[in-house]
Amino acid sequence: MPLRPENAHHARLLRVLREGPRSRAELGEVVDLSRSTLSAEVNRLIELGLVEADGLAASRGGRRSGIVKLASRLRFVGIDVGATSIDVAVTGGELEILGSVGEPFDVREGPAVVLEKAMSLLGKLRDQGLAPEIHGVGIGVPGPVSFRAGVPVMPPIMPGWDRFPVREELSQELGCPVMLDNDVNIMALGELHSGPAKSVDDFLLLKLGTGIGCGIVVDGTIYRGVSGSAGDIGHIRVDDTGPPCSCGNTGCLEAFFGGAALARDAEVAARSGRSPYLAQRLAESGMVTAADVTAGTAAGDPTSAQLIREGGHRVGQVLAGLVSFFNPGLVIIGGGVAQMGHTLLSEIRSVVYRRSLPLATGNMPIVLSELGATSGVIGAARLISDHVFSAE
Amino acid sequence: MPLRPENAHHARLLRVLREGPRSRAELGEVVDLSRSTLSAEVNRLIELGLVEADGLAASRGGRRSGIVKLASRLRFVGIDVGATSIDVAVTGGELEILGSVGEPFDVREGPAVVLEKAMSLLGKLRDQGLAPEIHGVGIGVPGPVSFRAGVPVMPPIMPGWDRFPVREELSQELGCPVMLDNDVNIMALGELHSGPAKSVDDFLLLKLGTGIGCGIVVDGTIYRGVSGSAGDIGHIRVDDTGPPCSCGNTGCLEAFFGGAALARDAEVAARSGRSPYLAQRLAESGMVTAADVTAGTAAGDPTSAQLIREGGHRVGQVLAGLVSFFNPGLVIIGGGVAQMGHTLLSEIRSVVYRRSLPLATGNMPIVLSELGATSGVIGAARLISDHVFSAE
Repeated sequence: MPLRPENAHHARLLRVLREGPRSRAELGEVVDLSRSTLSAEVNRLIELGLVEADGLAASRGGRRSGIVKLASRLRFVGIDVGATSIDVAVTGGELEILGSVGEPFDVREGPAVVLEKAMSLLGKLRDQGLAPEIHGVGIGVPGPVSFRAGVPVMPPIMPGWDRFPVREELSQELGCPVMLDNDVNIMALGELHSGPAKSVDDFLLLKLGTGIGCGIVVDGTIYRGVSGSAGDIGHIRVDDTGPPCSCGNTGCLEAFFGGAALARDAEVAARSGRSPYLAQRLAESGMVTAADVTAGTAAGDPTSAQLIREGGHRVGQVLAGLVSFFNPGLVIIGGGVAQMGHTLLSEIRSVVYRRSLPLATGNMPIVLSELGATSGVIGAARLISDHVFSAE
Repeated sequence: MPLRPENAHHARLLRVLREGPRSRAELGEVVDLSRSTLSAEVNRLIELGLVEADGLAASRGGRRSGIVKLASRLRFVGIDVGATSIDVAVTGGELEILGSVGEPFDVREGPAVVLEKAMSLLGKLRDQGLAPEIHGVGIGVPGPVSFRAGVPVMPPIMPGWDRFPVREELSQELGCPVMLDNDVNIMALGELHSGPAKSVDDFLLLKLGTGIGCGIVVDGTIYRGVSGSAGDIGHIRVDDTGPPCSCGNTGCLEAFFGGAALARDAEVAARSGRSPYLAQRLAESGMVTAADVTAGTAAGDPTSAQLIREGGHRVGQVLAGLVSFFNPGLVIIGGGVAQMGHTLLSEIRSVVYRRSLPLATGNMPIVLSELGATSGVIGAARLISDHVFSAE
């Protein structure tokens, strides 16, 4: 049976409890309700099986207040479809990960095959008894999405997915609510839920991976723009005389530092003899990838480190402009390429702090994501829990 | 006596009536209140002298519904302090301009002199009997503002204004609420109130004048960023090898196309003999200004037109990135330089439509402001009316 808060107070209480158990006294401080109304609403949530009692709080002078928490039966599923991987997690109501599984998988296999794979991964988790019921599924895909329609829209690296009814298909298959968003927005939601962004209203999540994108959070919610493409910064111009890009322009950020661009530059460095490290990777596997550059940087290969620095410089140039424009409270760098860690981070910081408006960068940290690969599945679970825990 | 809506319903009703008179039946459709509550609240607003009856609506089958409108005694004042001008307008409750006056004035004269001048301009309007009472004043200044504190913050072109208590000074002087914002945000509010942006939730207002800035509207309200500097795009990098900028970097947008940059390029063109038109202006007045380039373009001087095209190209490069990032529903070009009209607009459009993400520009118009110089004073009046018509 689908969960349904009966009114806006229920929705508000459920969202507060998503942050963890609360005493009834604490809930009263957060939610602006009379003592008797609050008590009635909480009791109703317990009747509905959405909330359960969890002992008594320590005394604060008067009668001890009862602690309540989200029902332990609640289960959300987060699915993060990347360009080359699928990750699935089952969470409880507080979005804590109860179990997760991931596999390399090519999104170009098309929606039917990819979603079947996702269902089979979910099946593995359910076989372990992790999710007897499922109360909602959030899913992210690596391309533009019509959030209202729940379908991908002209996604450049996802052949066969255009307008495929992902939300409807999964919803019918699993018999529960499903929400679809792009991979960058779900990462930003993951950071909003459990990362350093938890206490920041307005922030940017920069994803550096096969593609480059930006999650925009305004006042604690994802800003999607009028056609859902906000944050799609991979084709912002860095330099007119730069390399040609898959989009048909030249000098786009992705043409400098997307996954394909990095592999291209690494191969040139391998073939030219400039990097013995990359030459060896090329000889061993017949190709060099962005991941080889990451590994090379970690292994002390100066050419790999230089490629990362050059890329970080380009990212910094674009980010500096966005920081001047948007004046965020925090910038988080995530995605596969972010594993290049502090070499990348220091270059990005250097450019942004030099080129952005000082008033905008005064108190603005630039940090690496601490959640890493789990931010996507947590964010996907957050996406659907926002929907389920709403009164609309 | 200061106006004060007594509750959130009052605030909502006043804001709806700011758009024009409504029948009680129409108000009922907009505001989610029971018939009897609505009736009581409207009557209370009439008692408070905020609203007045305005005849009966045409019959829609049943009893004719009474029309109400904002009280005709309501007066707001909008003050737009530019780098080189001061404009003051008195409006009614619907923000219709009842009278306005403006004069060239140098903001570098400092806050005491400038505000005294603004008061004297307002005095002229009051002498005409336009504002027996004043219910609130909105004021915009050409630099960064702490919106919460009501003071300018390190404004580069406003010596002596840093942290000057503009809001408090004016509020004490006039005995009414005052709100301070930067000039670009009040222009965006003006467009939101009466321009083509009226029906668009998310849009950008690009101001091209002495400085270059951008007003950002998200979901019908100004987005100011965490330290109030959002939209300060004048120092976004266009080209590393560009001209030095007053900020200490090189190649900023303003270093290419701010008022000073345009005057600099025009003088070079005059002295080199490349533009007989500009040479003549130089000979006549001993200097060339951005306004001469505007006039030159209108007069058919090809060198002036070329300067505008080159500047428009740079603006387009920055705007293209912002459009990909923000995915607005509309871009409005305003400010003094925008009077260069279609030469400028066509160049900006050409670059943005070529370089932004197609998904972002699909249905996005780029237009010149139709309000021109009045957008600032209307927006300033809107700013203070938003404050007065709120229940907080």
